Amino acid sequence: MDNLKKRILEDARVMDKDILKVDSFLNHQIDVKLLVEMGLELHRRFAGEPVTKILTIESSGISVACATAMNFHVPVIFAKKGSSRKSDDEVFSVNAYSYTKQEPYVMNVSRKYIGNKDHILIIDDFLANGEAALAMLEIVRMAGATLAGIGIVIEKAFQKGGKAIRDKGIRLETLVSIQSMENGRIIFRD
Amino acid sequence: MDNLKKRILEDARVMDKDILKVDSFLNHQIDVKLLVEMGLELHRRFAGEPVTKILTIESSGISVACATAMNFHVPVIFAKKGSSRKSDDEVFSVNAYSYTKQEPYVMNVSRKYIGNKDHILIIDDFLANGEAALAMLEIVRMAGATLAGIGIVIEKAFQKGGKAIRDKGIRLETLVSIQSMENGRIIFRD
Repeated sequence: MDNLKKRILEDARVMDKDILKVDSFLNHQIDVKLLVEMGLELHRRFAGEPVTKILTIESSGISVACATAMNFHVPVIFAKKGSSRKSDDEVFSVNAYSYTKQEPYVMNVSRKYIGNKDHILIIDDFLANGEAALAMLEIVRMAGATLAGIGIVIEKAFQKGGKAIRDKGIRLETLVSIQSMENGRIIFRD
Repeated sequence: MDNLKKRILEDARVMDKDILKVDSFLNHQIDVKLLVEMGLELHRRFAGEPVTKILTIESSGISVACATAMNFHVPVIFAKKGSSRKSDDEVFSVNAYSYTKQEPYVMNVSRKYIGNKDHILIIDDFLANGEAALAMLEIVRMAGATLAGIGIVIEKAFQKGGKAIRDKGIRLETLVSIQSMENGRIIFRD
């Protein structure tokens, strides 16, 4: 997605610890025109899949998941972050770790909204070490649902998440993939 | 919005402490068709206003804010929740209180994304005691921006938020307003 690459080069900032700050257009302020384009492109990538629901994680995944779901005409489920594991029979509860915040959390999804007849597309804004994506995969597995694949806005290809997911044979589509950010210089992979 | 009233009567659950649980279509699973309709209706209500940005608060406000912003063709800013006040010069930081979680939090918005040339429409999923809306109003005031008004999906009219906002002379539009939920029975106001 050339528009997205251009926007990253213009507006994103490289921070400590391999963090790419895109809060001017993706995860604090949202450029809604770009959001619609991202939703269309993610739909195009997975258009052959009989997706029944889109799964994402609060908060930054919600906008992209909704923009994608508007083209698939399916519901979005956003996993909730908690600090403690729920033993509740009503909830799929998985441990995860936030790379950005450097802290563990628990990802929760109600059992009511995902089941063994669902074909799930996972959507998120970033893929770094893959913690959030792997936790969502685990929820899909626990629910007995099938998987269409994983759609990501920005992959940081120098971190291990992309390889871990592809090595499982899972279809992973990323709108842009960043090869390196050394010395604050962003190099895309293609 | 008759569709929304119908959906609330069918799917919403009244919980303890005047909580209305709408996680089957609004704030855990999102019915994207209904979301698009809500965005169109909120746009229709404020169509006369020269809105430059839409302000909401993570996480449940994001989907409705984006669906509305797609019609205004303006960016969304979602305020972030934190546990401590930021003294940072870069951030508008306001104390708020979550009625649902019964705990205080701090609402943060980067100073970069809202300024004195903006005309802000505030959007949120619920209006109960008005804590989140009043905190967002305070951020608009701190930024020196002007206000188009506040658009809410569900007002619980038996709590004090709606009156507090209308008493300030602020334009408040709610897609549905609930008069009472006594004994689990939802009565709409109109």
